[in-house]
Amino acid sequence: MRILLTNDDGIYTEGIFALYRELKKIGSVMIVAPDSERSSVGHGITLAYPIWVKKIKRKGKFFGYGISGTPADCVKFASSVLLKKKPDIVISGINLGPNDGCSVFYSGTVAGAREGALLGIPSMAVSLNTFTNPNFNYAATLSAKLAMLIFKNKLPPRTFLNVNVPNKKASKIKGVRITQQGNVPIHGEFTKRKDPNLRTYYWLSGRPVGIEKDMDIDTFALHNDYVSVTPIHCDLTDYDFCRELSRWKMRSITF
Amino acid sequence: MRILLTNDDGIYTEGIFALYRELKKIGSVMIVAPDSERSSVGHGITLAYPIWVKKIKRKGKFFGYGISGTPADCVKFASSVLLKKKPDIVISGINLGPNDGCSVFYSGTVAGAREGALLGIPSMAVSLNTFTNPNFNYAATLSAKLAMLIFKNKLPPRTFLNVNVPNKKASKIKGVRITQQGNVPIHGEFTKRKDPNLRTYYWLSGRPVGIEKDMDIDTFALHNDYVSVTPIHCDLTDYDFCRELSRWKMRSITF
Repeated sequence: MRILLTNDDGIYTEGIFALYRELKKIGSVMIVAPDSERSSVGHGITLAYPIWVKKIKRKGKFFGYGISGTPADCVKFASSVLLKKKPDIVISGINLGPNDGCSVFYSGTVAGAREGALLGIPSMAVSLNTFTNPNFNYAATLSAKLAMLIFKNKLPPRTFLNVNVPNKKASKIKGVRITQQGNVPIHGEFTKRKDPNLRTYYWLSGRPVGIEKDMDIDTFALHNDYVSVTPIHCDLTDYDFCRELSRWKMRSITF
Repeated sequence: MRILLTNDDGIYTEGIFALYRELKKIGSVMIVAPDSERSSVGHGITLAYPIWVKKIKRKGKFFGYGISGTPADCVKFASSVLLKKKPDIVISGINLGPNDGCSVFYSGTVAGAREGALLGIPSMAVSLNTFTNPNFNYAATLSAKLAMLIFKNKLPPRTFLNVNVPNKKASKIKGVRITQQGNVPIHGEFTKRKDPNLRTYYWLSGRPVGIEKDMDIDTFALHNDYVSVTPIHCDLTDYDFCRELSRWKMRSITF
């Protein structure tokens, strides 16, 4: 199995290394990841600036390519320049912090997997539900098993898996649940501060405005010590509403 | 009607001004837009840097707030800090360049509208199908009419409209079509160049790998001189595949 590995926390982080260590047991792994943290860049791509590419070593040996761009850039660059053949799978992670609910829109890690899916490659994003004291071991082992399942069973075109893993010992995890993306909005909170020159600036943080207490929703399953696996598709059309919209008589707009 | 106006090309651009000129005829407009171009930033948000806010004047009069962030940041900032009450509508645009097909993932303009939808505000993104010699007039007039229709008819929760307008005289435009988001991937092309110090860098450009010749698809309708209106939703779960996925027996994964 030929695996393309990326993330949004950057090529030097523990999460991508933990995943690499497990994935190389089941296939050949190429790492193409941002050269520094690109968290919350969403599905951004770099069109107005050059992209620099560096070969990165780890313990004296070639480890992967560090890219001065976003996770989506990394997947495009790997597919377009570095690889002669499409990889069998794109895996993005392991992210430090969960990517459940509306985070699927803000996350660079999820976008790395989405870019793979858009390019016709089976893909998966993996995130760990903590920002402190991460233990990536369980999530890494699980990711390798899920990669094998994807390889064997295939995914529908343009659908990828968004996997969120509790930061718990394996024995505390209740199992794997197939879930739906939560829809609770993340309210933006802006802290007003002064810089050392007494100019006002703001700092954004976010907080979900509630929780859907439903074990079929990614967030609630994750909070209840389940691994959450959400299949995410890439056709955003609201087909149900198309019918309703046709009653708006937009066709009759004239100028 | 209380309108929040943003874009990704920046607050100083012609597209947002053309839209402002028309929208102020039908409601009160607050402009909160990036202080410089933020094209192709997707649904990124700014968590690791301060956000600066400037009052911007145009012809000596207050015009709007220029934000050192993304369109999604702008909508969050406006909703959270500037506005006491939710606006009746968020409009993002007019973008210089189309946002059809897979561009809905890369576009900051579309993300501005999506952020509105996530926060529970009826929203619309508007883009013009050209990068050169834009004439925003038709798109601006049309946007005001569509805003009135949205205000009157309402949109489903978390669904917004993605509008793409041909860069043609009104008389050349065939009408408004309700369309589906195209799924043709945008292949990343990387031009290899040398900087003045002879170091190698790359420059990303993109090209759709084909076209779906179907007038119900946004791209094809737009190319055939229709205004394309696609309702976009925010639940990315692939429900059909959930059933299939349950046959993978992931629940039996043990460690």
